[in-house]
Amino acid sequence: MANSRFEYVKQFEQIDHLLPNTWIVVRIDGRGFTKLCAKYNFEKPNDRRALDLMNAAAKAVVSEIHDITIAYGVSDEFSFVFHKSSALFERRSSKIVSTIVSTFTAYYIHLWATYFPDTPLSPPLPSFDGRAVCYPNVQNLRDYMSWRQADCHINNLYNTTFWSLVQIGGVNAKDAEKLLSGTLAADKNEMLFSRFHINYNNEPEIFKKGSVVYRDYELVEPGTHDVATAVDQLGEPVQQSKTQEDNIKKRRAKARVLVDHVDIIKDDFWERRPWLLSNKPGAIPKET
Amino acid sequence: MANSRFEYVKQFEQIDHLLPNTWIVVRIDGRGFTKLCAKYNFEKPNDRRALDLMNAAAKAVVSEIHDITIAYGVSDEFSFVFHKSSALFERRSSKIVSTIVSTFTAYYIHLWATYFPDTPLSPPLPSFDGRAVCYPNVQNLRDYMSWRQADCHINNLYNTTFWSLVQIGGVNAKDAEKLLSGTLAADKNEMLFSRFHINYNNEPEIFKKGSVVYRDYELVEPGTHDVATAVDQLGEPVQQSKTQEDNIKKRRAKARVLVDHVDIIKDDFWERRPWLLSNKPGAIPKET
Amino acid sequence: MANSRFEYVKQFEQIDHLLPNTWIVVRIDGRGFTKLCAKYNFEKPNDRRALDLMNAAAKAVVSEIHDITIAYGVSDEFSFVFHKSSALFERRSSKIVSTIVSTFTAYYIHLWATYFPDTPLSPPLPSFDGRAVCYPNVQNLRDYMSWRQADCHINNLYNTTFWSLVQIGGVNAKDAEKLLSGTLAADKNEMLFSRFHINYNNEPEIFKKGSVVYRDYELVEPGTHDVATAVDQLGEPVQQSKTQEDNIKKRRAKARVLVDHVDIIKDDFWERRPWLLSNKPGAIPKET
Amino acid sequence: MANSRFEYVKQFEQIDHLLPNTWIVVRIDGRGFTKLCAKYNFEKPNDRRALDLMNAAAKAVVSEIHDITIAYGVSDEFSFVFHKSSALFERRSSKIVSTIVSTFTAYYIHLWATYFPDTPLSPPLPSFDGRAVCYPNVQNLRDYMSWRQADCHINNLYNTTFWSLVQIGGVNAKDAEKLLSGTLAADKNEMLFSRFHINYNNEPEIFKKGSVVYRDYELVEPGTHDVATAVDQLGEPVQQSKTQEDNIKKRRAKARVLVDHVDIIKDDFWERRPWLLSNKPGAIPKET
Repeated sequence: MANSRFEYVKQFEQIDHLLPNTWIVVRIDGRGFTKLCAKYNFEKPNDRRALDLMNAAAKAVVSEIHDITIAYGVSDEFSFVFHKSSALFERRSSKIVSTIVSTFTAYYIHLWATYFPDTPLSPPLPSFDGRAVCYPNVQNLRDYMSWRQADCHINNLYNTTFWSLVQIGGVNAKDAEKLLSGTLAADKNEMLFSRFHINYNNEPEIFKKGSVVYRDYELVEPGTHDVATAVDQLGEPVQQSKTQEDNIKKRRAKARVLVDHVDIIKDDFWERRPWLLSNKPGAIPKET
Repeated sequence: MANSRFEYVKQFEQIDHLLPNTWIVVRIDGRGFTKLCAKYNFEKPNDRRALDLMNAAAKAVVSEIHDITIAYGVSDEFSFVFHKSSALFERRSSKIVSTIVSTFTAYYIHLWATYFPDTPLSPPLPSFDGRAVCYPNVQNLRDYMSWRQADCHINNLYNTTFWSLVQIGGVNAKDAEKLLSGTLAADKNEMLFSRFHINYNNEPEIFKKGSVVYRDYELVEPGTHDVATAVDQLGEPVQQSKTQEDNIKKRRAKARVLVDHVDIIKDDFWERRPWLLSNKPGAIPKET
Repeated sequence: MANSRFEYVKQFEQIDHLLPNTWIVVRIDGRGFTKLCAKYNFEKPNDRRALDLMNAAAKAVVSEIHDITIAYGVSDEFSFVFHKSSALFERRSSKIVSTIVSTFTAYYIHLWATYFPDTPLSPPLPSFDGRAVCYPNVQNLRDYMSWRQADCHINNLYNTTFWSLVQIGGVNAKDAEKLLSGTLAADKNEMLFSRFHINYNNEPEIFKKGSVVYRDYELVEPGTHDVATAVDQLGEPVQQSKTQEDNIKKRRAKARVLVDHVDIIKDDFWERRPWLLSNKPGAIPKET
Repeated sequence: MANSRFEYVKQFEQIDHLLPNTWIVVRIDGRGFTKLCAKYNFEKPNDRRALDLMNAAAKAVVSEIHDITIAYGVSDEFSFVFHKSSALFERRSSKIVSTIVSTFTAYYIHLWATYFPDTPLSPPLPSFDGRAVCYPNVQNLRDYMSWRQADCHINNLYNTTFWSLVQIGGVNAKDAEKLLSGTLAADKNEMLFSRFHINYNNEPEIFKKGSVVYRDYELVEPGTHDVATAVDQLGEPVQQSKTQEDNIKKRRAKARVLVDHVDIIKDDFWERRPWLLSNKPGAIPKET
């Protein structure tokens, strides 16, 4: 059969390489998760099992795809960061995005029963969409990460206060919305404390800070490295010898992938973990 | 917390609208399925359970996403076609591709146990990547579909002969490859028949033709419509009234999604199913 | 000198091929022509010399770049149409746009002295910007052309009335604007006739219809061809033999490039000139 | 006239914003300049008048478009660099490229008679094409510039030797090519000196180094600034007050646009002219 007369259709595929030497962030979002939360009775304002499932899926993605240097998740979204030197799939956008989304979805569905043993899935199933964005330098990348974590904080403080009013205070949803309209962070903190004796600072870190996922190496004393500057000035990715590459791969494979709930807006987090920006694996921490 | 000073990072997202008034094909492919076939002992050259699982996942995708007019699958790939008038997600490429890939993956994982009850999944899990391609007219679209089905035929004839040589004939893989090198379709047919008494024509249609998935309405007498021409000449998508739209949605929701194994290269298939190109639901077939 | 260590910078160039089998329209616009009109005292509402210069430059562009099938101009803008089968510069958008813009600008500057013999150019010089848009079928392309010509009509009727009020009627600009605000075409026609005895229908065609530029062959009886349908259904561009191609080139080179001021919204224009859509040169008209 | 029914065609325009916070390089190239050189009898290997015309056109472009920070030209090409903070035309690629190409062409044609007073232009006129490339950091940008200047050197040394062999040595073109095949820079230097008593170092700087065009301010002592690092770390463009902006504009408008023929590969050039990377105008040099 003459297949060749049809093959011209291959020319219609358009190339979508992401700009070299930029940080690639793939953010995925749950599709229609408001309905999903209702269907599976997720707890309000935060369902710990649902967050743990998100984190478990993200951990699997980071473990399988070595070019991911760090990931950050909150609610039903997760952002995966590829180092700016990554050449994965020749940096083809649709291939990178679809691989992340598919791998994440696979683990989310597969691990569902672990986190929701009494609530079997039924169609329509949970699914996610995604997109890739390029950031030229470390400042832009860190501002992106800070944006997501600041968003997490703002939303969680609002939701915690809102649901306290509704669930503990017996206020109806409309009135709760009105009460909160125009309030500042300090007002919400005060409202939580005076009305419900809730000290927001004592809320679980996973709710307040979201979740950051990365390979764990030995921490470094801050101030001893200026990784951000060195990385920003990188022109072409440095070519490694085959031995060096194998060495890097081995150390990466050995590293434990960690799920953490810490501040990633301040410098400290990044300075103590220079491998996140440098893409050079650190020392494997000794077991204790 | 001043989130606003980080919000500038939103500007880096680049817009990826697909050209209006063109057919969108999203093709997804299994990632590393050679390894996967080995790991889960898929039968060679075709594993019926694996194909049925692919088809079940595709059927779920077509059922959930109404803008898909037809899908075609073979081996570990599936192509989903959006009508050229579709405005789904404002035709944003990454959103369309990631949604399809994620929904497909979700069902593939969820339904795995139905088709492989004795073979539980274990990491790394199956996953898929995807891409979107635009085709300006019906001829281009049909040539794309024909290209995939012709490919299915070519590969299946080769694989059937190759694995007959190996599994029945006891030939080793290298020698089988040599025997087949440079042979035409007729040679392979002859080899199958003379050596193994296999009449290729009697092989299952699902192996020879792949699988086509679409909404089922009453067939139409060919020659009574010239849908392709009408559709090619469409400028702006026709605006439907709210009532018409609701009516269309209802008929679509009622329609059974069919998995078929038939020739889609010849005109007959398309002429008898004018709704595939026109995007206007046909009559619901009477139950028998 | 080791140039090779710098050559990696070539990878940053991003590919911008326009979708195959679509009509390419490159529209160019004068930059800051309001200032330019004032600087060189262009007549209001239309400066015949300025329009003739635009048309002369467009004619030169169409003559030099054979893949252009038709061009349409009004005021300080011109749209150049490439046949959907064109493979010029591998359909790279920036190469196509920049070539058109540069060639047009070159002739505009070079021919300035012919049309404005008493008004020498001085910096800042006239310049143009441009963009390419793809249209999938004949209907879309014709709707684009109709859009520009309808715009020409609307603007010219407005401007003719406005400047009559100002120049003949002695009304000041602000009052003229107020008088015209909310008026329909019929109102403007009436105002022109009753106040100034101007019958808009008798205005020059170049002002009312704009300018269309194309290769001139013998007109064809309408209804004898259905070129639009045939062209819309074209899949892959038909491969011509070397002799056929040479023949086509010769006929195209022989053809006179015409500047016309006619209706291009109605079917008649396109039906009598099937070569505009088919891309097959017609018969050279006999000289009279 | 109902223009509105055609307006849908505007949706087909695809957005082409260049990634924010990256350096934009627009390179333009003469189209078919080999033929042009022959037609107008350009001198070989370098025609001083032709280079001066290129430089005069580039100087006009840099003077008119304030967002250009530096330009570099050699032979029939010129690269224009926009600072990474530039928001010109919302960073739309086709608008930026077409404006540069058109403005350059306008001056090239307009100034032709100044540099070639005895050689009037005739159709086909000189024209240029162009493209935009984004570079994420200073190292990438400088490597791009170095690439072009290294190319200039390599080509000029080759051409100088080749044309010496042909014009002075009486060698025919084919033999000259053979003689030079496989030679290193040192070999060509030696050949020039021993055969023709030409010391390549004494060749005019404009031929050896190409031409760099930029605004001239007072030079700065190297080592006192680390502009590259500061600029690489810039996240969002710093918002200037209206007064600061006006001040910057004035200083830029006062600055003389310079055409220079110097080494731009080494650090010295950039360190002494921090405004090229910082985008902050320096001090206006005192007149002497």
